[in-house]
Amino acid sequence: MSAAPPVRLRLPADLWPDVTSDAARRLMMAAIESFARKGYHATTTRDIATAAGMSPAALYVHFPSKAAVLFAIARSGHEQALELVRGAIAASDDPEQRIRRIVEEFTAWHARRHRIARIVQYELHGLDAGDFDVVRRLRRQTDQLVRDVIADGVAAGRFQATDVPTAARAVLSLGIDVARWYTERAQPSPDELGRQYADLVLRMLRA
Amino acid sequence: MSAAPPVRLRLPADLWPDVTSDAARRLMMAAIESFARKGYHATTTRDIATAAGMSPAALYVHFPSKAAVLFAIARSGHEQALELVRGAIAASDDPEQRIRRIVEEFTAWHARRHRIARIVQYELHGLDAGDFDVVRRLRRQTDQLVRDVIADGVAAGRFQATDVPTAARAVLSLGIDVARWYTERAQPSPDELGRQYADLVLRMLRA
Repeated sequence: MSAAPPVRLRLPADLWPDVTSDAARRLMMAAIESFARKGYHATTTRDIATAAGMSPAALYVHFPSKAAVLFAIARSGHEQALELVRGAIAASDDPEQRIRRIVEEFTAWHARRHRIARIVQYELHGLDAGDFDVVRRLRRQTDQLVRDVIADGVAAGRFQATDVPTAARAVLSLGIDVARWYTERAQPSPDELGRQYADLVLRMLRA
Repeated sequence: MSAAPPVRLRLPADLWPDVTSDAARRLMMAAIESFARKGYHATTTRDIATAAGMSPAALYVHFPSKAAVLFAIARSGHEQALELVRGAIAASDDPEQRIRRIVEEFTAWHARRHRIARIVQYELHGLDAGDFDVVRRLRRQTDQLVRDVIADGVAAGRFQATDVPTAARAVLSLGIDVARWYTERAQPSPDELGRQYADLVLRMLRA
């Protein structure tokens, strides 16, 4: 980035709990850094391997291609978002409480993980068609869960929504767009932003 | 895009009314197509010139660099967004009417011009520092106008907002994120989406 040089990524160790290989995790972190700096298309497998302190040959032990690294990052991000929505729904029977927690956690995730989220949300065009379908199915599951919560709230007389798919779109959109502008120096904190957005969304949906 | 091959751009002739040279407009359109397909960093000035049916030398007559083409696109897009917000404010004294028209037009613009808007919103990291400052000033003016309309509404007892900057952020965020997912085949139409989002935003803001 010529306008804002990237700082060295410091990602928590528990970022990809499902990726058991330390080297694979290191490569995914290096890929996020390289994609953020040069864009997906301009990044080579050599860039990724070098940033991870490995040889290109060592990369191929873990990933058959650059697109496979992108897919691992995108799939994991979408699975985390889906799990977070599922967890919020499991935590309460009340539509308001469910939406509050969905927005709080979805927003905070996109703020806290804004570098990963940018890849997850804006670089999907780099995916192979089959991989893209996997990601699209995860997105649709997340969308559908949010639509169901809103529709339940409408049926219970708690929410008002002229168009449930558009309302669900708006709810998720607010969280996703955080990844575009959030930085390490941004205010408010991820959790506080989540709370503020949850308040706004509930005002938007309440009957 | 391997997942969704780009269709040939068909952009209206009045897209850049301030760009008087036909060749410059053609280069900007070609750049948008190339950036959308390969990303900014992987696109060369030769790619842009070729897509415009011109030689690289002919490109340099109009733009000193690839970054200069990006800047022309980004500045024009941000100026259009700012003008649209100014126009909405000039059209009424009423905070609700102002917000309604801002959201309707800002959202419809990002839907109708989603390919341009993606460059305008997501490729700013390619700008030179000085150019980035110009764009940042335009963004801040737009932000400030929306904050002022919300603050006026709060002062008049018409709106309720715990945090005006966050509310303004949310209002603009909803419109901007449309550029990420909107396609030629998306539903609803740009104008209808603008109306639906304006309804949602007014529910979010009304006292």
